[in-house]
Amino acid sequence: MGLEDIIRVADGREKADLLLKNAKIVNVFAGEIIEDHVAISKDMIAGFGKYSAHKTIDLEGKYVCPGLIDGHVHIESSLLSVPEYARAVVPLGTTAVIADPHEIANVLGLDGIRYMLDSSRNLPLDVYITLPSCVPASHLETTGARLTASDLSLLIDEERILGVGEVMNFPSVLKGDRGTLEKIAVAGRRVVEGHAPGLSGKHLSAYISAGIRSDHECTSVEEAEEKLQKGMHIMIREASPARNLKTLLPLVNAKNSRRFSFVSDDRHPIDLVEEGHIDFMIRTAVKMAVDPVVAIQLATINTAEYFRLGNVGAVAPGYQADLVVFDTPSDFKVLKVMKRGGVVAENGCLILPLKAPEVHVRSSINVAWLDTKDLSIKAEGSEIRVIEVIPDQIVTKERIENATVRNGLAVADPDRDLLKIAVLERHLASGNIGLGFVKGFGLKKGAIGSSVAHDSHNIVVVGTSDQDMMCAIEEIIKMRGGLVAVVDGKVLSALTLEIAGLMSSEPFERVEHRMRELASAAKQMECGLERPFMTLSFMALSVIPELKLTDKGLVDVDQFSIVPLFTK
Amino acid sequence: MGLEDIIRVADGREKADLLLKNAKIVNVFAGEIIEDHVAISKDMIAGFGKYSAHKTIDLEGKYVCPGLIDGHVHIESSLLSVPEYARAVVPLGTTAVIADPHEIANVLGLDGIRYMLDSSRNLPLDVYITLPSCVPASHLETTGARLTASDLSLLIDEERILGVGEVMNFPSVLKGDRGTLEKIAVAGRRVVEGHAPGLSGKHLSAYISAGIRSDHECTSVEEAEEKLQKGMHIMIREASPARNLKTLLPLVNAKNSRRFSFVSDDRHPIDLVEEGHIDFMIRTAVKMAVDPVVAIQLATINTAEYFRLGNVGAVAPGYQADLVVFDTPSDFKVLKVMKRGGVVAENGCLILPLKAPEVHVRSSINVAWLDTKDLSIKAEGSEIRVIEVIPDQIVTKERIENATVRNGLAVADPDRDLLKIAVLERHLASGNIGLGFVKGFGLKKGAIGSSVAHDSHNIVVVGTSDQDMMCAIEEIIKMRGGLVAVVDGKVLSALTLEIAGLMSSEPFERVEHRMRELASAAKQMECGLERPFMTLSFMALSVIPELKLTDKGLVDVDQFSIVPLFTK
Repeated sequence: MGLEDIIRVADGREKADLLLKNAKIVNVFAGEIIEDHVAISKDMIAGFGKYSAHKTIDLEGKYVCPGLIDGHVHIESSLLSVPEYARAVVPLGTTAVIADPHEIANVLGLDGIRYMLDSSRNLPLDVYITLPSCVPASHLETTGARLTASDLSLLIDEERILGVGEVMNFPSVLKGDRGTLEKIAVAGRRVVEGHAPGLSGKHLSAYISAGIRSDHECTSVEEAEEKLQKGMHIMIREASPARNLKTLLPLVNAKNSRRFSFVSDDRHPIDLVEEGHIDFMIRTAVKMAVDPVVAIQLATINTAEYFRLGNVGAVAPGYQADLVVFDTPSDFKVLKVMKRGGVVAENGCLILPLKAPEVHVRSSINVAWLDTKDLSIKAEGSEIRVIEVIPDQIVTKERIENATVRNGLAVADPDRDLLKIAVLERHLASGNIGLGFVKGFGLKKGAIGSSVAHDSHNIVVVGTSDQDMMCAIEEIIKMRGGLVAVVDGKVLSALTLEIAGLMSSEPFERVEHRMRELASAAKQMECGLERPFMTLSFMALSVIPELKLTDKGLVDVDQFSIVPLFTK
Repeated sequence: MGLEDIIRVADGREKADLLLKNAKIVNVFAGEIIEDHVAISKDMIAGFGKYSAHKTIDLEGKYVCPGLIDGHVHIESSLLSVPEYARAVVPLGTTAVIADPHEIANVLGLDGIRYMLDSSRNLPLDVYITLPSCVPASHLETTGARLTASDLSLLIDEERILGVGEVMNFPSVLKGDRGTLEKIAVAGRRVVEGHAPGLSGKHLSAYISAGIRSDHECTSVEEAEEKLQKGMHIMIREASPARNLKTLLPLVNAKNSRRFSFVSDDRHPIDLVEEGHIDFMIRTAVKMAVDPVVAIQLATINTAEYFRLGNVGAVAPGYQADLVVFDTPSDFKVLKVMKRGGVVAENGCLILPLKAPEVHVRSSINVAWLDTKDLSIKAEGSEIRVIEVIPDQIVTKERIENATVRNGLAVADPDRDLLKIAVLERHLASGNIGLGFVKGFGLKKGAIGSSVAHDSHNIVVVGTSDQDMMCAIEEIIKMRGGLVAVVDGKVLSALTLEIAGLMSSEPFERVEHRMRELASAAKQMECGLERPFMTLSFMALSVIPELKLTDKGLVDVDQFSIVPLFTK
């Protein structure tokens, strides 16, 4: 049974394994801070009060709260392997995440989800999974996998699977598309996660009626308020590419706060290091005058209850001993992190070596043989559709420009900031290459490339010359996935992402360092964007307006169809 | 799939079945009252706002809240069949109950639980069930059934089963008794209900550590506060025999209110008629200055969320259209009740005939042949242990008194208010009869008897003469269960409880009338107790101090053993 031990300890008939003395306990149930001691039996909290214990840690009046929970994250966006992701976030107080392996599933299908399950065992971080509901996200690009309701049903009963992940394809829901509704039905009594940017009124009611009960895409108080009133659990997001925390916090009050959680969605390694994770959201909220206990509730019990996790998110008897020791509510500086009853991190660092399981996954870069001339564009007209980047946003504009034509070919013209962009299918070796032009990167020389390209994660390259673009592609293929900056046929900087072409197996400090190096390489090439590789990774996202490029060609997102490059 | 319809209606592409116009909607998510219209598609809420509909009801500014939920009730205590219970409580706004069929399970075991499941189909009341964990409640009486973990596991996956019912035997939990822990384990991810009157400190922590996460037995703010802090969901009870509402409400505040629910536990027909049900608790709370929206949350969403019921407890798209229309929050007078999208009650009455299923259950009165002389007590001493009733309480006192002896027999002596009490085993026809004496009923003549006698529900009779006691027993046997008042061999009043000896199949108005008649008959017999049959039904409850009588004899509850009648 296993319960006998904790009962004996809680009842004081047997010594506790550990006693945390003199703690200011954040009690998420009472909504108060209570001074007391916390007794731990093995991996569980056994009780409050005086207990004799094998080991005692005197917290000398420091605060203790439950381990933090990220309610919605794509771990792949950190570019880190799961163990390295744990090494990055656990010292920040995060002891559980609800991960949607949407990215790796688009590349490797069920194998990708299994890889995330397998590679997240034995970590000081509990990784729960919601099953990606939108693989592929669109029919306008070639993806590595296709997951139907039958596929999802193979995994739904696994222990750490909490439900069905964000249903991004809201038009399918509104249409009553059978395949989509079947995927929702796979959840059964589990949660179905939402993703409904800007949806309101009757459309929103229809979307929610399908059983979708959360949203992490609110970008205004009005949007969040309507979704709240209609019964959605509002996940306030502070992602690297989308920051909604300060905008949404004014909506949170004593009457409704239980219906909110903190989530990171996509968070890059540099942000994790510089700002933090869920701890950063608590700090920010407290600075914005949110009651610290309420802020911590959004980061713990609210998320646990929403996902029906009965044993995490609180400091109370019978709960898993996942704890964060911090100095003051105003700073929320994480001093110590405990996972399943043991101290695992102190002062920002894991103190134990990870016992990450060795998990293998097949190589995902599967490209048809190609040549530099495959990147050339025959000038079939004089005017072209150009993707215009809007700095720090994932939406783009469509612009009509004159083509620069040389020797019968439409070519990049760095002086006009008119760069060539190519998307190369990398799953099926189909030989598909989408070609087009983009404005806004500002490169004066060389090329940059990535095997991270939402949502199908084909290879995307932007460059000033076909030669350097080809060199970038070659380097990515050699690395079996990665990010690269090339000038004059020479690799200036590269990061290997050999796990599905999305994640690195390197230590997170090295990944972070490489990301800085890559950004500075891009700067050398006179790229004007703050985060050129992030921007690059959204150039193929065929569900976000206006104009995108996939391996099938240019996509007019509003029309949701392929359009020709030349307009005249 | 079934979802297509509601999606089309919510999206405004198809007419709603019903539109409730001009409602003041109690929004339990936002914690606010919002003026809007509510569109309904079949049995579900589809959306807010303007919709065209096949039918419209103009609420003219009246309030609408979710149907009320009783979080813990023994329907058997109403003495009503499930359909009649529904007829009594649905017009009061109750549209769902979480029932613990502990009483009928003690009589009929799994058959009793199945009877409750079967007889609660097709009602305008959703009856959810938690599986009784304490059958029998004690080894000191003979019960009709014994339910082990294996038995419970046969039913746990049925649709309306929400978990394991109140674990009353806390000493077993603290001892780590294997059978008890196995029953808790049957719940799996479902809830395990608590029952821990007065438990505190380490004992309480140990009890909670076993995974028990609610309690409805708090009788003081201090008790409830400790349980709240330790993670229990606090069910505030306003039962007929135990009223805790006014005591506990001062603990409820904006920070902790989500952790409370309203429950009735045991509520008799007279109280249902005179005061009400969960609606009465809302009224009382609002009178005590609780925010009406918070009071309604305690009666709706808090309970639904605690039990992980995803589709009830709120007025929002995708929720079951269980609604209460009421006048003002201060009165909370229920004007109209809607169940699954249809109006089922108006102005205190069901407006539709019940389509209750015909369900049969075997007769439960199985008594060995007996004779008046089987009730006589040979005078084996001069001093006796006497059960002393404390009016309106279920605890009793032990008193040592001189026996009144006639012809070598210890007999009832009404002049001294020393009445005889007998408990007759009625399940196995074992012939067990427990005999003793009781003070406090005050009868000057006749006898009263009941086949409701917690928790084993043997036949209990208190009387002034063996002849009248025998007559009462005979009448109960003839009725196949019931309550009876007898004087001089004549039945003054009786209520047939032929369903397990616990519940009547008569209309609830008639049951209520009979209960008043029985009370007045007892008064005629000079009984001084307000509710003699309620008091009578607790005389055999061998787990509540101090002295009780079961079919096995007198029970000293503190020693938890059988003790002799004669002390000298």
